[in-house]
Amino acid sequence: MPYIPLPEHLPGITGLLEYRQDTAAPIRELTQILLRGPSTLTEAERELIATVVSNRNECRFCTAAHTAAASVLMGEADTASQVKRDIEAAPVSEKMKALLTIAAQVQVNGKNVTEASIKRARENGATDLEIHDTVLIAALFCLYNRYVDGLATVTPDNPDFYIALGGRLKQHGYNRLKQGYDHLKQSTLHK
Amino acid sequence: MPYIPLPEHLPGITGLLEYRQDTAAPIRELTQILLRGPSTLTEAERELIATVVSNRNECRFCTAAHTAAASVLMGEADTASQVKRDIEAAPVSEKMKALLTIAAQVQVNGKNVTEASIKRARENGATDLEIHDTVLIAALFCLYNRYVDGLATVTPDNPDFYIALGGRLKQHGYNRLKQGYDHLKQSTLHK
Repeated sequence: MPYIPLPEHLPGITGLLEYRQDTAAPIRELTQILLRGPSTLTEAERELIATVVSNRNECRFCTAAHTAAASVLMGEADTASQVKRDIEAAPVSEKMKALLTIAAQVQVNGKNVTEASIKRARENGATDLEIHDTVLIAALFCLYNRYVDGLATVTPDNPDFYIALGGRLKQHGYNRLKQGYDHLKQSTLHK
Repeated sequence: MPYIPLPEHLPGITGLLEYRQDTAAPIRELTQILLRGPSTLTEAERELIATVVSNRNECRFCTAAHTAAASVLMGEADTASQVKRDIEAAPVSEKMKALLTIAAQVQVNGKNVTEASIKRARENGATDLEIHDTVLIAALFCLYNRYVDGLATVTPDNPDFYIALGGRLKQHGYNRLKQGYDHLKQSTLHK
């Protein structure tokens, strides 16, 4: 049971974004720019950053949602699964290993980012903006994870829910849709 | 030395908000709504939430900035100082003690918020929206603190810098000013 009254059919972040829409608008906008805006990192790579941070914050809803988004963007589920288990062993570029390591440090505390991890990212071709965006995406998911779990929102168990949500995040990004999340509810939430 | 090239005269968050202005705009907007928008919590109370979270994340820049903002809004520096040392002993309302306790739980992890702490807040008069906003403000400062420290931004030592910044945050809130932060630089940064 969430700590505040949220629409029953809207689990995780989805109910919170409807609960207070004036704060939701800039949260959506920031996420859309960072995860779907022009970038030298692919959308899938940026979703992997969200996945690693959410997983380390043990936020089940966000981890499942962004694992699904990364997987649908990549057309395979192995990579997202592996970055959660072991960044170094995952089938991603050396640059991404370095950036995911920085993201994992940010998850603990900003001060945990080391000169060595920044140096490694640069040596593997990361730009200033990629380093900046990695830190800010990781920080943003530290916000999301706390927002979702701090208010004890509901985490659906049905994996189909996250597959549908991942598809939505691939197709529409983080913009608010007119129909809200009703298309997700109808298809999977109450299975 | 920051990990990415930031304007030398813009320490802490100020340089980051100029570095990538498209992401800065929704971050500023979210902060302005949450900390300065209509609320049954005073601006000072909301700054105290930011202060407690930043202090527990050991983010020196944000802690000093929001301590100063809370103090200038309250006309005294004792309360902001005391909430950092001991929430229960601080001269704030019972409702604020409960909300600051929730914020301190969110700082660690969203899952750390307990039913008991929510119950205590309600018993002391906190509304759903106040509980929601407390969690989201705490989560937002978990973003800010990681953004500021994750990129190793500069933390000025001169206390006058934060007094000037606190005054700016009281007078103008979190909106971007045409002159950027030049008024702060001129007055205090290079003393």
